[in-house]
Amino acid sequence: MRDLSLAECEDILRMQTVGRIAVRDADGVYIVPLHYAFAEGAIFGHAAPGKKLRLMRLWPHVALQVDTIVSPTEWKSVLVQGAFRELTGEEEQVHARQVLVRAFEGNPLLVTAGHGHRTTLAEAIVFRIDPAEITGCAEGG
Amino acid sequence: MRDLSLAECEDILRMQTVGRIAVRDADGVYIVPLHYAFAEGAIFGHAAPGKKLRLMRLWPHVALQVDTIVSPTEWKSVLVQGAFRELTGEEEQVHARQVLVRAFEGNPLLVTAGHGHRTTLAEAIVFRIDPAEITGCAEGG
Repeated sequence: MRDLSLAECEDILRMQTVGRIAVRDADGVYIVPLHYAFAEGAIFGHAAPGKKLRLMRLWPHVALQVDTIVSPTEWKSVLVQGAFRELTGEEEQVHARQVLVRAFEGNPLLVTAGHGHRTTLAEAIVFRIDPAEITGCAEGG
Repeated sequence: MRDLSLAECEDILRMQTVGRIAVRDADGVYIVPLHYAFAEGAIFGHAAPGKKLRLMRLWPHVALQVDTIVSPTEWKSVLVQGAFRELTGEEEQVHARQVLVRAFEGNPLLVTAGHGHRTTLAEAIVFRIDPAEITGCAEGG
């Protein structure tokens, strides 16, 4: 197993659009898939009201894990640890939505797919995670 | 988005052999891929000495997330929240190793692939996670 360089980690973050976000809860951690965009050194995401959003507001120190797994002996895994910040200003919201739409090949429906509420991206709560630390490790390959 | 039944969750846990384990650390959470076996209602895993193991010993309330993602609009995700317990008795260690080898199609090399130290399964620290709660949700499909 070897550590990934920051550049390798960022390549994986840019290449992928699905990760798993881990958030503290009262007893331990809660973790669910997250569709995200990596741009300007930050993770952009969106959320519908629900458990994930509630927990991120309570404990804004979150982690996003993204991997490429070819086989049990060939995989790469990146961990972004950072601070959740809800985007509330109109300008930063518009910008975040543009970043998300671009990452999802210009299709706003894909961006919000997966939300129970079927909110449009214009309605969704948008947030960013500013990395405090990006680390990664790999096996094989 | 719909909730999965316990039976659906257990089917996914049995079908998969790779998940992502989330563990608390001092500031937030740490999350890495985990090769596991689901048997007898519990998660069996193994670990080499390192950050993951150190954190699980400190904060034994962990979460394992397992998913099947077909597309952004078609995925299932299971979350096991439970208690990490290191297996220290010889009998329970032997049993856990048998469970792990069986889940990995009888190939002990596959079980330990991914560990930097290239420990054999006989040397690896084995543990189980007894679920306090198993929940899941799905989109599409």
